[in-house]
Amino acid sequence: MDFQFDTQTLALQERVREFVDTRILPAEEAFRGQIDALENRWAWDSVPILAELRDEARAQGLWNLFLPGSAGAGLTNLQYAPLAEITGRVLNLAPAVFNCAAPDTGNMEVLNEFGTDSQKARWLEPLLRGEIRSAFAMTEPDVASSDATNIETSIVRDGGDYVITGHKWYITGAMNPNAQIFIVMGKTDAAADRHRQQSMILVPRTTPGVAVVRGMHVLGYDDHEHGGHAEVVFDDVRVPTSNLIAGEGMGFAIAQARLGPGRIHHCMRAIGVAERAIELMCERADSREAFGRKLSEQGVVRSWIADARVQVEQLRLLVLKTAWLMDTVGNRGAHTEIQAIKIATPRVVQGILDDAIQLFGAGGVSQDFPLAELYAAIRTLRLADGPDEVHMNSLAREELRRQADRRAAGR
Amino acid sequence: MDFQFDTQTLALQERVREFVDTRILPAEEAFRGQIDALENRWAWDSVPILAELRDEARAQGLWNLFLPGSAGAGLTNLQYAPLAEITGRVLNLAPAVFNCAAPDTGNMEVLNEFGTDSQKARWLEPLLRGEIRSAFAMTEPDVASSDATNIETSIVRDGGDYVITGHKWYITGAMNPNAQIFIVMGKTDAAADRHRQQSMILVPRTTPGVAVVRGMHVLGYDDHEHGGHAEVVFDDVRVPTSNLIAGEGMGFAIAQARLGPGRIHHCMRAIGVAERAIELMCERADSREAFGRKLSEQGVVRSWIADARVQVEQLRLLVLKTAWLMDTVGNRGAHTEIQAIKIATPRVVQGILDDAIQLFGAGGVSQDFPLAELYAAIRTLRLADGPDEVHMNSLAREELRRQADRRAAGR
Amino acid sequence: MDFQFDTQTLALQERVREFVDTRILPAEEAFRGQIDALENRWAWDSVPILAELRDEARAQGLWNLFLPGSAGAGLTNLQYAPLAEITGRVLNLAPAVFNCAAPDTGNMEVLNEFGTDSQKARWLEPLLRGEIRSAFAMTEPDVASSDATNIETSIVRDGGDYVITGHKWYITGAMNPNAQIFIVMGKTDAAADRHRQQSMILVPRTTPGVAVVRGMHVLGYDDHEHGGHAEVVFDDVRVPTSNLIAGEGMGFAIAQARLGPGRIHHCMRAIGVAERAIELMCERADSREAFGRKLSEQGVVRSWIADARVQVEQLRLLVLKTAWLMDTVGNRGAHTEIQAIKIATPRVVQGILDDAIQLFGAGGVSQDFPLAELYAAIRTLRLADGPDEVHMNSLAREELRRQADRRAAGR
Amino acid sequence: MDFQFDTQTLALQERVREFVDTRILPAEEAFRGQIDALENRWAWDSVPILAELRDEARAQGLWNLFLPGSAGAGLTNLQYAPLAEITGRVLNLAPAVFNCAAPDTGNMEVLNEFGTDSQKARWLEPLLRGEIRSAFAMTEPDVASSDATNIETSIVRDGGDYVITGHKWYITGAMNPNAQIFIVMGKTDAAADRHRQQSMILVPRTTPGVAVVRGMHVLGYDDHEHGGHAEVVFDDVRVPTSNLIAGEGMGFAIAQARLGPGRIHHCMRAIGVAERAIELMCERADSREAFGRKLSEQGVVRSWIADARVQVEQLRLLVLKTAWLMDTVGNRGAHTEIQAIKIATPRVVQGILDDAIQLFGAGGVSQDFPLAELYAAIRTLRLADGPDEVHMNSLAREELRRQADRRAAGR
Repeated sequence: MDFQFDTQTLALQERVREFVDTRILPAEEAFRGQIDALENRWAWDSVPILAELRDEARAQGLWNLFLPGSAGAGLTNLQYAPLAEITGRVLNLAPAVFNCAAPDTGNMEVLNEFGTDSQKARWLEPLLRGEIRSAFAMTEPDVASSDATNIETSIVRDGGDYVITGHKWYITGAMNPNAQIFIVMGKTDAAADRHRQQSMILVPRTTPGVAVVRGMHVLGYDDHEHGGHAEVVFDDVRVPTSNLIAGEGMGFAIAQARLGPGRIHHCMRAIGVAERAIELMCERADSREAFGRKLSEQGVVRSWIADARVQVEQLRLLVLKTAWLMDTVGNRGAHTEIQAIKIATPRVVQGILDDAIQLFGAGGVSQDFPLAELYAAIRTLRLADGPDEVHMNSLAREELRRQADRRAAGR
Repeated sequence: MDFQFDTQTLALQERVREFVDTRILPAEEAFRGQIDALENRWAWDSVPILAELRDEARAQGLWNLFLPGSAGAGLTNLQYAPLAEITGRVLNLAPAVFNCAAPDTGNMEVLNEFGTDSQKARWLEPLLRGEIRSAFAMTEPDVASSDATNIETSIVRDGGDYVITGHKWYITGAMNPNAQIFIVMGKTDAAADRHRQQSMILVPRTTPGVAVVRGMHVLGYDDHEHGGHAEVVFDDVRVPTSNLIAGEGMGFAIAQARLGPGRIHHCMRAIGVAERAIELMCERADSREAFGRKLSEQGVVRSWIADARVQVEQLRLLVLKTAWLMDTVGNRGAHTEIQAIKIATPRVVQGILDDAIQLFGAGGVSQDFPLAELYAAIRTLRLADGPDEVHMNSLAREELRRQADRRAAGR
Repeated sequence: MDFQFDTQTLALQERVREFVDTRILPAEEAFRGQIDALENRWAWDSVPILAELRDEARAQGLWNLFLPGSAGAGLTNLQYAPLAEITGRVLNLAPAVFNCAAPDTGNMEVLNEFGTDSQKARWLEPLLRGEIRSAFAMTEPDVASSDATNIETSIVRDGGDYVITGHKWYITGAMNPNAQIFIVMGKTDAAADRHRQQSMILVPRTTPGVAVVRGMHVLGYDDHEHGGHAEVVFDDVRVPTSNLIAGEGMGFAIAQARLGPGRIHHCMRAIGVAERAIELMCERADSREAFGRKLSEQGVVRSWIADARVQVEQLRLLVLKTAWLMDTVGNRGAHTEIQAIKIATPRVVQGILDDAIQLFGAGGVSQDFPLAELYAAIRTLRLADGPDEVHMNSLAREELRRQADRRAAGR
Repeated sequence: MDFQFDTQTLALQERVREFVDTRILPAEEAFRGQIDALENRWAWDSVPILAELRDEARAQGLWNLFLPGSAGAGLTNLQYAPLAEITGRVLNLAPAVFNCAAPDTGNMEVLNEFGTDSQKARWLEPLLRGEIRSAFAMTEPDVASSDATNIETSIVRDGGDYVITGHKWYITGAMNPNAQIFIVMGKTDAAADRHRQQSMILVPRTTPGVAVVRGMHVLGYDDHEHGGHAEVVFDDVRVPTSNLIAGEGMGFAIAQARLGPGRIHHCMRAIGVAERAIELMCERADSREAFGRKLSEQGVVRSWIADARVQVEQLRLLVLKTAWLMDTVGNRGAHTEIQAIKIATPRVVQGILDDAIQLFGAGGVSQDFPLAELYAAIRTLRLADGPDEVHMNSLAREELRRQADRRAAGR
């Protein structure tokens, strides 16, 4: 057992941190300004400062870091995880600069692992080059879509085509007109086994019948800085059968495969958010005084800072171990841990941000500090990919089974 | 001891509930629509539907219910409290319809109690008639203004005038051009005793030197539906000495007097918010299914609902008792309770809303349900009038003193 | 609505407080000493100091205060509740001195309400005089007995007798040889409706087949100061049919009727415990110093004290309202509140005691201060009469039904 | 970074687990029985079954596993940590069997690191052989001894002797007559620098003036199964100057050095306790039914199990990392982590045990299951070595300093 990162990772951490601190953090305001000046405020990835930073990152080889194997930077999950944490410090910009922003990352993984050569050439390549963006259409407004059997979108074979009909929302990034391709989850066979009913299919944005209706909000934010969260209606949308990914009935399996790395990324970025919150808390606490003493000398404030540090250290290790498990025994072997980090991370980071907001007073909920916006983003993670409670239930069931096996084995 | 409301209150509850359910709730959407159509989106109180509803409310005698004595509806705090709760069910509209919306309520109380006849005629009267609106300028961006000695805004006597210089923010309602009068807290004598340094003064919005800079946000909301939260700069603002309220050095005392009823109102409305959250939770839980069972049959969801009910029942009683104390022994005698409800209420209601959001999944953070917006409003209450921690510290100090007295008395 | 106690209650509060403070509190140590000197350490109610104090209390009319109507002191639940709180300050002794200790109180209520004249003469009278004690045999070790249908003890009619067979534990008070009569819950008809299967029957301690096996512990305490918690086996125990209470199938109904007042008593005493914890915390915090400042000046300690005060004030009001509801609309009308106080009270008081223990350091868990013992007592309340979770589930179901009715009624 | 234990550790884990499961767990009851049969119930280490098990363990080389270097088993902290976890499953017996029980472990470390040859020969050798036991006398009843400057015990030089006067309590193990040697913390120079006032000195139990007064309790338990927690008075106790450890003024430094490994041991054992609680919860939940469904199928129970698993996984990693830091950069470099695990571990495990108790109903607080006793043990850890709050304060101060340094460095 060894808690030190390998030398390649240490070097990359240094380089990414340097790039984030010196290039991206100072560009944050300009980035927002350029977006505000856009005619279409959702077209965030068209602003010049992003292009400029991406060119720089690409030139330095800080590109597609999330993607293992030859198509990407070739890092393991454990190597990429600490880099994702650093990008969490500038949540709206840094991941995009390194072409490591959700949901494109997950979509690229899906195409890389399950796509045909032609699908890869048509969609994966431009995504890897950062030319276009993509969306992942899973959540539905009318049902508890955390239970995959509830999904109502249908994908019906009709000759050489599939016809897609359904209603989705919170399709992250899809308000951006450059999100040219949607991966849509729907049912090809409602009568099949529970986890064989669903399929995934590629639907180009411009296909007739695709209507991007509006941007959904998150606690008052429309998140246009990364393409918003669209409500999308698919009304008799027709695509060729070659757009199906990996075969009928593979939807659930692909979703599971997609989940693992995505969780690592989300959680590590959330830990980066927590670190930024701690930094902000400490700076504020040292600079304000009330009732004759600095906030940083007051017991309750110190208990917040201590709690934050103690919790973040634990969380990070669990996420890193999960990444290591994925690298060594695969997604399936890391199943419990993948659920555990989904449950633990947003909850803890939400608590830290809530304390930080409290420390900042009115400033905490304002647009002058990043805390409120980060709070909204992290709060939403507790709902994304199914509410925590679904995962807790499933994790407990697995624990109960493991314990029953142990007892049965007389151990 | 008797936990039944008096007959007048019961009758008023019935009438207000009826009015809210049949007139205001159905008008909520139109109200938002008319505001969106305004040229100046902050001028919320200029929309026709509000005028209409207010006329109706006034005609029914449901007007200025918050104000005790002959100037208002003549209700006690204990009588008004349950009415305030009902208005909390439509937070952005109902209080305004009854001319019971903050911060005007507090400002009217101040003028009613401390104003000169001329101040009353000039500002209180139109406020009571609902013709103009007002703001209360207390919080400052650069200091922890929960500690009144930190206030940096100065009010300097210069001949027959006072000259005000300072920087305020989160001045609720002040983005609305019809917020014609500001009550400004500043220091007239930084060398006086801790609680005699501050004064309050009336500053008409249009006085030269008053700059309403921008609207501050609350977790992504600008709250333009009730006039936003303005950042305001006072740069050598000159008003006649007759604008001072109640004399130099009275600022802290007025602030304290203003606090009590305001807390009751805020807390009761927050309880109304909690009740609405419970309603929404129950309805949603009954209408959604996951993993083969209705959400309302799942244990964790039930524990949320039970927790909410158990907590709300306790909270309401404490707030009502506080109102009763204010009516019977005055603000000073209710000091501990006034602090207690400020500490307890937003914290509990925030938790209930967080559970409700979780139950609603993505819908919970969206603009399609009121939960997210209510969450932002309630979260902010934990910061308003000083963060909870300040009040907990003070409440504990008082408890320690009381206990020491008890021990000294040998009891 | 009026939060002031009536004058009779105020006077009684004064007298009970005086009696507790001047007579009972100073006797606590002698009481323990005399018990330690007993040959049978469970025979706690045989010590002279108890007899002496009881004579005094009886002489002052402070006797059977819990029992409404002519058989008792004639107080309402709302009048008795604040007196119960005061006795909670000396949990092991004060309730017994006033003949207001569980489980005798509940048993006397049952006999008073449901007993035949002959049952009353034989058992209720000596209980009211404080001559004997009783036990209530409900909980079973082998099943989740919070679900009354799980109860396995059988009560079988055999000619003029009932034959009882079953296994009970945590029968409070039953280790005391003077607990002469047991009220036993069992099933007379396992095939009847869910809530008509159970009956209650009087079983004298000395009936052949009754075996008091051992005293069960509560977190290391055997609670011999109030008769412990016995494991009792009923092996073909035969009693005449006249020992049945109120008829076959009435067991569940009697249990429900018994619950209401018992909850009020338990909860008010628990609030008394919380008040004592606050007193102890404040005294300790004022008398100890660490790192240059008194504990009472440290922020985290103050937050504990403030939290405790804020929570206790809410709890007390809810319990008092529940008592008032029981007095005005009956147990059934107070059903939700009776569950709510069961859920809320022990949880909150456990938290306060945990903080208090933390403040006392090692002394907190020691035998030198009452905190650890009180902690054990209060912790157990979360399990008594079924774990909290059962009650939360049921309370939520009721809330869901009420909300569904409301929606159905179009309100 | 690598989360796999090395092969030696894996092999030892297997052997220790096997030994605990097949030899120690089955002996637990006999161990208690033999202690109960002792004339002196505190002389726990004199029972035959312990001697037998120790011989076996020693023969298998499972002896002094905690002690690094040639004097012990030569394991690193990281190697020993997972073994300590396993012993936590049988908290009262397993550590003792392997001669790895506190406080002897810490005392042996002190003697090994700071003792003179003669001190080692006289006390360390028999301790390493398991022939005698020892105690560590730090905590004082009259002051907040978490602040080392508060310590009132004096150690005064008088010719060739030191004279010790003071009052200690909660001296774990010291009720056992075979605890032959006490390491006593006291002040040699109250005027020295804050952390140079204290010294540690060896005081044989039988030295005149040493009075072992009584056993202190922990939530109703006297912990006689491991020698209790003694109150000890030192009244003009005279020992030769050669009994001083490492020189005057070294007390604080020794205490700090002693802390690190002890924390690892305590925390890993506590994690073993948590694992046992999870096992018990799962087994119980699978075997009980209420309201028509197994407890293991109920949502709230599952949320407890999931929470427990999620928290334990995080905790373990943090403790292991701390062990690794101690091995690689030393106690000082691991300072924050050593504090963090002290804060996090008992709190989390206490919560898990509380849930487990709740799941077990009355059985949970009883003597029939280990949960209540473990609860008491773990609760006490939150007080041992100073209450958590002291460590949170200190950890936060360090974090604030680190952040200030970072800002100063422009990073």
